[in-house]
This record gives sequence, C-alpha cells and structure tokens, in this order.
Amino acid sequence: MTTTPGEFELIARMRERWGPLAEGIGDDAAVLTAPRGEQIVVSVDACHEGVHFERAWLSLREIGYRAVTAALSDLAAMAASPRGVLLAIALPPAGSRDLMEIADGVGDAVRAAQTVVIGGNLSAAATLSITTTAVGSAFSPLTRSGARPGNLLYVTGALGGPGAAVDAFKRGDTMSAAVRERFAKPTARIAEARWLAARGVVAAIDVSDGLRQDALHLAAASHVGLAIDWTLVPTIDGLDADRASLSGEEYELLVASPVPLPEAEFAARFGVPLTRIGRLTERPNADSSRVVAPRGHDHFSR
Amino acid sequence: MTTTPGEFELIARMRERWGPLAEGIGDDAAVLTAPRGEQIVVSVDACHEGVHFERAWLSLREIGYRAVTAALSDLAAMAASPRGVLLAIALPPAGSRDLMEIADGVGDAVRAAQTVVIGGNLSAAATLSITTTAVGSAFSPLTRSGARPGNLLYVTGALGGPGAAVDAFKRGDTMSAAVRERFAKPTARIAEARWLAARGVVAAIDVSDGLRQDALHLAAASHVGLAIDWTLVPTIDGLDADRASLSGEEYELLVASPVPLPEAEFAARFGVPLTRIGRLTERPNADSSRVVAPRGHDHFSR
Repeated sequence: MTTTPGEFELIARMRERWGPLAEGIGDDAAVLTAPRGEQIVVSVDACHEGVHFERAWLSLREIGYRAVTAALSDLAAMAASPRGVLLAIALPPAGSRDLMEIADGVGDAVRAAQTVVIGGNLSAAATLSITTTAVGSAFSPLTRSGARPGNLLYVTGALGGPGAAVDAFKRGDTMSAAVRERFAKPTARIAEARWLAARGVVAAIDVSDGLRQDALHLAAASHVGLAIDWTLVPTIDGLDADRASLSGEEYELLVASPVPLPEAEFAARFGVPLTRIGRLTERPNADSSRVVAPRGHDHFSR
Repeated sequence: MTTTPGEFELIARMRERWGPLAEGIGDDAAVLTAPRGEQIVVSVDACHEGVHFERAWLSLREIGYRAVTAALSDLAAMAASPRGVLLAIALPPAGSRDLMEIADGVGDAVRAAQTVVIGGNLSAAATLSITTTAVGSAFSPLTRSGARPGNLLYVTGALGGPGAAVDAFKRGDTMSAAVRERFAKPTARIAEARWLAARGVVAAIDVSDGLRQDALHLAAASHVGLAIDWTLVPTIDGLDADRASLSGEEYELLVASPVPLPEAEFAARFGVPLTRIGRLTERPNADSSRVVAPRGHDHFSR
C-alpha cells in the first residue's frame, strides 16, 4: 500500500535536498544570535497562487525562488544582512512532488543571498502559498522615514520588466527573454543596499508596489514631497518609462541621499545602473499629489 | 461610488484598532533589539480555513486569537519571551469586515502574552489564512534535544479538550463549555515555561501534534527512549486519558527535568496542574516504538 508522504517525511525530504542550505531546523523555533550591537530586522511576505502568481507562468522552482527573494528584498530595503529565512508552505493534496521543486527554488534564493533556511511550517491547503519570514541584522537599519527635503532620489536597476511580463502573461502574448527574466528571477539588492548605506543613503524602500506608489510611501513616512522626473526612470527593452514606474514586484531599491552617489562606480560594481531620478521637497502633500497619481500595485484591486 | 477598501487602508484600520498593541509598523521590515546576551528565537505557524479551522466552529475573533497563540506557544516551548509578532493574513474578496474581527482576536492574543504586533503582510486569496511569525528572545533557549536518560517527564494542564472539540464539531454534537474553551481559547504557556526553565527543566516541546506524537519528537531529538504511563495523563471533563494523549493543538508543554519539579507550587501559581507522567530511558527505538504507536496530528492525513 502506498500512502501520501506525511508532513514530517516531506520536511525531512526538503532538508535533505537543502543540505548545508538548511541549518538548525528541528526545534519548535529557530535560534539565532545577532552580531554584537546589531539590531534584528524581520519581515514577512506571502505569495499565493492565483493572486501573486499562476503556475502557467512560471516553473515551481521559479515560484519558490521569487517567494523567498521578495522577503529578502525587504531586508535589503533596510540595509540588513540576512541571517536566515523561515518558510510557511501551504500545499494542495498530492503536491509532494511540487514541493521538492519549490524547495529547489528556495535553495536557489537563499544561496544567492548567502543565507540559510532556519525553520518553517508545512500544511495542507486548497491552493499553493509560500509565506516567507526573512530575519536579518543591521548595525543601523535604513528606514522609509529617514529622508529629508533636498535629498536626492536614486533607483537601482532598469524597471518595467515584471509589469510587462504580467501584462503579456495575461494577454497570452510573447515577451523578450529579458522581460521574462526580470519577472522570474529578480534579485534582492542586499549587497547593493549595504554599499549604498555606507555611502550616505539615509532612507530606502524596495520597489514592490511600483515605483510611483513606493515613492509615495517613502515620502509619506519621511513627511516630505516628491519632485521626480519620471522620464528619467531607467527601463529595460525600451519600455515606456511612465508605465515602468507602475510596474510592481521589481525588487529594485529607491533610495534617498543627502550627497550625490557614485553612479558609475555602482554600475561597474553591481552590473546594474544606479540612476538619479529626482529629489525630495519641503511640502509633503502639495508636491506628492501634484507629481504622483496614487496608482500602483494593490492586491485588492488587481 | 463605494469601492472595496484597499490593502493600505485595511492595514491602517487594523493599526487603529490595535492602538498601543501595534508598534513600529510602517517600514519594509520590523526592527527589534534583543536584551544584551540573549538569543533571538523565531517561529512561524500557519492557520488555514478548511484545514486548521472552520468558520462554523469558531468566531473570527477566536480564529485570530488561536492563530497567534499557536505561534506564541512555540516561543513558550523554547522558554523565550515574546518580543513581537508579524502577521501574514490572506483574505478572500470582500473580507474587510472579517479582517477587523480577526484583528481583535490578534489583539487579544498579543495582550495575553504581553507582546505587540510589529509587522505583517496582507494579501488577497481564495481562502482565509493567518500565518504568524513570533519573535522572542531567551538567555538560554530550551530545545527538544536537551533531555537525557533518567530525566522525569511532566506535562502542564489537562489534555483532551481540543481533540474532543474537533470530534464534536465534525459530528455536529454538543460539547461542554470547558471543552469548547480549551479549543477556542488556548493559552501559550510563556510564563510557565520560563518558571520551569528556572527550576531545572532541560528540554521542552509544546503539545501541538498530540502528546504521543510530541513525546516522540522530543525523544527522537534527544536520542532517548520514553517510559510514559499514559493513564497518568491529566484530562479535562473526565475524558479518556488514552484519547487525550492524541489530542493536538493543546499548546500545553511537555518538559524533561533531571530533578523533581514542584507540582503543587506550579498549580497554585498558574492555576493549571503540572503532572509527572513518566521518564526518559536509554534505548531510543526499542522503548519508543513499544510504548508509543506513531499516531497523532498530521496535516496531510487529517
């Protein structure tokens, strides 16, 4: 008689698959120590089938990779170094083979961020979902609220890919390899964020809801206004800059700095552009409502 | 024109409802500092509608309370003090009113554990789920693996309630108020665990899969055997001890101690019994397979 593998066997199989990428799993909770003097930074991010992704769009390995990378991107926004991730995976019945592919994607993501899986939770559910808790530490975490009027605004990378990919998937259109890659294989800008923080950046947010929306979040938290030239927003594949600024799930960084940042040095070091797109102003509401229409990515309006 | 409240408005409403029970929400990640010398303890626990609960069984407020308490119970098992919880809530369309009731239950749970909500994630999904990340700290976390042969085994509380409640719900039977309460309003044994750790306990696990199953987990992690007299397992409402030892989601503690524990003092202090049910032996597999049938709560066999 063959039986469906149980919860504990599936967890054991994932651990085997992860090898040294999993650490200290097996207790009721994960234990970790922050480097002396550093603060703990924790974020949680959920990816639900039918809401954040469709199986027809991505491989399960890519789905696992993206879920973990999205959570790690929140640590990047705080200029934190990851110390480990915990995964809460909900799996439809008979999904044990799917789980191993997801686990491989999780492994890709933690390896890319030089971190490990330290715990989690596996349960049955009607639809697949992956909820990742990312735990990191930072001596002086960046926040959204650290910006001041006059600060310069920079964005990493070239935007528009994820938005264009989702549009194309929905319409059943083809897309360039570069656009698909930006959706399927985003990078959590962890090393980039720490480098930028060391060069004067005082506030940051990761671009998950769309640059326009996230710029508003940063401005609101810092009680400042925005003066952004949206035509300067760098895009991939010649995409329209205006549309690119509405593209969510980019996992690039929007940062504010009181001093000019070394754009060429950044590009040479990390292989992606760092682009100045504007500055912050005194008047919060007037400027932000004038320059930015409050549109963007909202899970309840998608 | 009325529109469905968006993600950000719903989060704002929850924060308003929580008041001082929410702290520092608004950045990409939560920031916290552990007391000097303490380790960080992190656990994640998921509650899915149709798997972990049915709306017909409990109020949404009770569902929110239980979800958070389950995660906090993992911190109790490590003798950690909670520093905050992060909530990933997935909500079916038009569930914004449900969300506020869930938020009230979350508030009840963090208040009971003297902690706060420090972050989270809200997304749409086909079914309701609440995934809680509990972050705590401990100078010397208890683990499952700290037990040695000869240690005495104790369990807190009186078991059987949640199992009997689920059985009654499934059959459409009535149940006593005490049985329902044990299911709907469990307690994370946080203060109890720290008190026990200070009195010599060397290993612990919370009873989430059923005492039999969880005793096996502890024994396996510590490489010891079990000698438990299952007739000694304390039950509520005259429930059968054997059945009570299969009841999951109890959130009581099973602890191992090299020294006898002050049972009467514990009962007087915390209002629940502490009961010695057996001891740990040298031979791992022989004993555990003889004494314990590997049954219990498994999400994939429920």
